Amino acid sequence: MFRVMDRAQALERQGHRIYHLELGSPRMAPPDEIVDGTVQALREKQLGYAPMAGVKELRVALAARYTSLTGQALTDSQVVISPANLLIHQFLDITCNPDDRVVLFTPAFPSYWAAAAHQGLQVTPVPLSERDGFHLTRQAIDDALAAQPRAIVVNNANNPTGALYDPMILRALAERCEEAGIWLLSDETYADLTFDGSFCTLASAQAGYVVAMSSFSKVCSIPGFRTGYACAHEAVAAKLALSNSTLYSCLPLFTQLGCLAGMKVLDTYASEVRTRGARLIGSCHNRINRSGILHCHKPESGFYLFVDIARTGLDDLTFCRRLLDDHQTAVTPGRSFGDSYASFIRIAVCGQEEDVDEGLSRTIAFAQQLGGCRVQAA
Amino acid sequence: MFRVMDRAQALERQGHRIYHLELGSPRMAPPDEIVDGTVQALREKQLGYAPMAGVKELRVALAARYTSLTGQALTDSQVVISPANLLIHQFLDITCNPDDRVVLFTPAFPSYWAAAAHQGLQVTPVPLSERDGFHLTRQAIDDALAAQPRAIVVNNANNPTGALYDPMILRALAERCEEAGIWLLSDETYADLTFDGSFCTLASAQAGYVVAMSSFSKVCSIPGFRTGYACAHEAVAAKLALSNSTLYSCLPLFTQLGCLAGMKVLDTYASEVRTRGARLIGSCHNRINRSGILHCHKPESGFYLFVDIARTGLDDLTFCRRLLDDHQTAVTPGRSFGDSYASFIRIAVCGQEEDVDEGLSRTIAFAQQLGGCRVQAA
Repeated sequence: MFRVMDRAQALERQGHRIYHLELGSPRMAPPDEIVDGTVQALREKQLGYAPMAGVKELRVALAARYTSLTGQALTDSQVVISPANLLIHQFLDITCNPDDRVVLFTPAFPSYWAAAAHQGLQVTPVPLSERDGFHLTRQAIDDALAAQPRAIVVNNANNPTGALYDPMILRALAERCEEAGIWLLSDETYADLTFDGSFCTLASAQAGYVVAMSSFSKVCSIPGFRTGYACAHEAVAAKLALSNSTLYSCLPLFTQLGCLAGMKVLDTYASEVRTRGARLIGSCHNRINRSGILHCHKPESGFYLFVDIARTGLDDLTFCRRLLDDHQTAVTPGRSFGDSYASFIRIAVCGQEEDVDEGLSRTIAFAQQLGGCRVQAA
Repeated sequence: MFRVMDRAQALERQGHRIYHLELGSPRMAPPDEIVDGTVQALREKQLGYAPMAGVKELRVALAARYTSLTGQALTDSQVVISPANLLIHQFLDITCNPDDRVVLFTPAFPSYWAAAAHQGLQVTPVPLSERDGFHLTRQAIDDALAAQPRAIVVNNANNPTGALYDPMILRALAERCEEAGIWLLSDETYADLTFDGSFCTLASAQAGYVVAMSSFSKVCSIPGFRTGYACAHEAVAAKLALSNSTLYSCLPLFTQLGCLAGMKVLDTYASEVRTRGARLIGSCHNRINRSGILHCHKPESGFYLFVDIARTGLDDLTFCRRLLDDHQTAVTPGRSFGDSYASFIRIAVCGQEEDVDEGLSRTIAFAQQLGGCRVQAA
């Protein structure tokens, strides 16, 4: 993924116009409340250290939201603020020892692989079948537990497939992890973006082994704020807070106060993002599947399309390199999400509309041209 | 240290007024340029992802500053932005393997101990003698190298002692580390605060094994910005940037743009902080040494006093607990800086003037009362 970005930037420095479909960096204007709240906190000189678990008022507000989502009474002592990407490392750090096994349901977000490798863990990928629309199945859960891992990471809604998992099956996963004493990280970063507005969080007042995490970055279009959060058992939350303190002391006060100000409009804003996202991704999905050569399942959340390029005859790396070099369009190779996804690419449709529209046209045209060439050569 | 803070907060929740001398959190108003620059960046919607090494313009500005300080041509590809506390972890992570040995010159900042423990490293403390005013000596360097460590951390100017090391001796340390292939982290967070304005950085255009680091937090009174930086060989800087990307993607754009805006007033502002700091710490130092029972060396930088409490007859933990419970004053136990400093406390004089003045009076009065008791009991 970073090689694509580096190459795209190099081409831009040479004066080329590049269409960016590789990054999950939303371009919608964030809620004014967040920017205004952050500015106000800066003007009020909220420039000192914050509590290591995060600003209490923000944790209280998030606990109240989890309480209303789950119907269980969750408290601020179960909530910790930290950058979402770092929370993956922190979760694995406090739950695993080097050489422990972690299961990833694949395709899986590159940061899970990177965090596991950084901590010297063994990764067992459990593939979710394209036939099942990349959904989590009971069979996949059986396979995950059979690997006897120390920890499992589940990502719902999923990046890159946009698949939304069945709440019954998710809850079965959480229950079986609790029974077996297996740590479960439920990454729910895209859960607020499910197009039908449904939201199944595995945050729970009772769970001992389940850590739910999410972030303001994607839903509020503020990836640069680096404000994620986790919800876990009090004892686990305390360990995550200590991890914050050990690693980086604390996050800025003013960014957290900005997010707190944004919470009162979060649901309204998220609903707008979902409506816009569903329309855009629906039309992109149609264009891809009408191309006659590319194929993807219809995402149920987020802003990614995981596109099968097998019929172009190229592998992902070659496809991405040629699409970038010859057609100025950057997308992400499937292998970023697991070795077995060399016949896929991920297209992010959250950027500038012009990028999305023109970049997708170029991707489809390139694929069609490849398809034609291949048929002629046969 | 955190136990003191937790206890202090618990007492505050009970309604007690606590005098805070435990935290290095400066209370001077930061340069307007930093706050204004950050606000402007937020208003301009600089809310997306930043480059993993940090904002290029900020790295260019820091490289120019290092160039002017060292007389060597340093470039932005040698500079990486990251929270200073995290940089300690990142340095140890990219240079050491578990069970490797790291040398700390003691007394040493608690984060070094925590980072080494977190990464499973063996720590060899090399004490700097009180007789030498806690300065770095050639003997200490010999001792450090004799331990055959993978890495050494040196903190100049020092937290907690305020000692400023001889530039000749520092350069000898760097040269010997280069020769021996030992990694050296030079933590220069307080270097901009040396009262005589001198500044010896070990940043070097040539160094392969030396990483210099510093931060905007202390000198600019913005600890909550979490914006530190490191200067190293290009190859090492690239590894630190990759570590940023792996761990937390990037820092916010707007905080970095705020720091960039502050750089044009950094030297003027730092000079004011130094003048004010020198006067305040000079008077505190006099009061302590005139107490007849407490003693400390005169700091040459920063805002800490490392105070010998041996003559009170109490160890640091008991002294700190009783000072807090009975006299509402929070200071840091010496053992936070190494096991052998149980007869010391650290007093931070950077907080509200009322806290500093009243807290110091209470500390001295408590010590004098203890001294009197002890003499009477003998």
